Amino acid sequence: MRDPAENAQLALLLEVSGTPKPGNVDRHREYEDLRFEQFMAGAVGALPGLQSAADGDPLGAAFEDAVEGMSEQSGGNTQFGALLALAPLVAAAATDRLTPEAVAAVVGATTVADACGFYRAFEHVDVAVDDPPEGADDLDVRRGRDAVGTLRARGLALSDIMELSADHDGVAAEWIAGFERSFEAAGWLLEDDGPVYKRASRAFLRLLAAEPDTFVATRNGETAATEATRRARAVLDGEEDPEELAAEFVERDINPGTTADLTAAALFIALERGLEV
Amino acid sequence: MRDPAENAQLALLLEVSGTPKPGNVDRHREYEDLRFEQFMAGAVGALPGLQSAADGDPLGAAFEDAVEGMSEQSGGNTQFGALLALAPLVAAAATDRLTPEAVAAVVGATTVADACGFYRAFEHVDVAVDDPPEGADDLDVRRGRDAVGTLRARGLALSDIMELSADHDGVAAEWIAGFERSFEAAGWLLEDDGPVYKRASRAFLRLLAAEPDTFVATRNGETAATEATRRARAVLDGEEDPEELAAEFVERDINPGTTADLTAAALFIALERGLEV
Repeated sequence: MRDPAENAQLALLLEVSGTPKPGNVDRHREYEDLRFEQFMAGAVGALPGLQSAADGDPLGAAFEDAVEGMSEQSGGNTQFGALLALAPLVAAAATDRLTPEAVAAVVGATTVADACGFYRAFEHVDVAVDDPPEGADDLDVRRGRDAVGTLRARGLALSDIMELSADHDGVAAEWIAGFERSFEAAGWLLEDDGPVYKRASRAFLRLLAAEPDTFVATRNGETAATEATRRARAVLDGEEDPEELAAEFVERDINPGTTADLTAAALFIALERGLEV
Repeated sequence: MRDPAENAQLALLLEVSGTPKPGNVDRHREYEDLRFEQFMAGAVGALPGLQSAADGDPLGAAFEDAVEGMSEQSGGNTQFGALLALAPLVAAAATDRLTPEAVAAVVGATTVADACGFYRAFEHVDVAVDDPPEGADDLDVRRGRDAVGTLRARGLALSDIMELSADHDGVAAEWIAGFERSFEAAGWLLEDDGPVYKRASRAFLRLLAAEPDTFVATRNGETAATEATRRARAVLDGEEDPEELAAEFVERDINPGTTADLTAAALFIALERGLEV
């Protein structure tokens, strides 16, 4: 029996193996500077941090450990967002109650120290992020540990930081909404049939068709994010070929990474609930 | 920095990600009853056993743990041979001396208890093996723990069992020959350039071109094994297209699994020696 940390590691591997996931690195496609094998190494390196989350260690420190281990490959940021989504889910699963309520309780219990760990995690790897809202420069995640003084002075817990980010970051939005979309997509994965790599592809497309990807919005702009969602819907409606769309999005560097993060979270929940591999 | 057990897990993942490896499961090809994702789960499950080997626990028990964890997926035997190759290499690497001599010393130090662990490992998963030589029925690995009495009575260490199998099993032959082919292929991987999945493919083809695969010989017969080696050589000589050969071998169920095991061993050695991912 795999424990929650092992299922989280497997979820990372199954996520990147799912294909086609238009614009993402997957079994069949990759970017020259972001390769499939770097996601494998990221998943290997992340395990000790995931284990720390499962052991009930402070969540911010566990997340930072996972990110530090993940970053020990030459591709840069492979799974930062996926680990941010997985950390509270793993902590909840380790208490034997992987429910939206239990995850909300984990989120609600985060502290200022957890927020500091989250900021420190940005020192290990370059993450594409938006500029902070006007007047919030002191909370720019790119400040890394330099933001610790501000976090302490203002008494901001990690859950507060996620709340501040929820409108422009799809993973933060999940933190605040009890991982509603991840749990729903886990249901799709469990009800689907066939190999997991095809289920993961379909869940990814359904998530993308339902809501614009915030990572695309950050890197490529709102118009591209809206287009990606419209075209994922077209794939589900049988009007576009997903393999062609995948080739086009990789060519245009439109990488719906946040949707991939939620797919990893959904795979984790599904594995914990008995998804057979 | 990844430790030896983590590098062994990564080697398993990089091995199955290498493509094209004619006849093997890889990023682009799989069998209906043996899928890429099951190799991912196998690598996740094997880690505690690999860690046990790195910790200096008795090698047979560590191997059995790795196989038991590997088998917690529905594809059956994904990486039995690869784990048999990796176990002594991980044990040697954990002592900071990953050399042919150090691995030979690990092999030489195996005991009857290790042989018992090796036999017990066969109870966790169905492995395609030859019938034992005439008169050696009591050492048939398919007897699992029932062979323990014979092993004890005859005082057979795991190294003795490998010696008895070396002429018809390519991994056992490596145990006896100081992993000569694995070390050589690790050199190829390190001298090569480009993404690891292409290096792994080329190393696999060179290994297969050099010697017939004993897993193919067992499952498909000597003629098929000789053909696979001849055609791997044709690929290296530019006379055959590896992608077409891969499609044909999967269709004919010619799976050079022992060559894949040695590729995993070579990837592990290369990672320990600085192969960048």
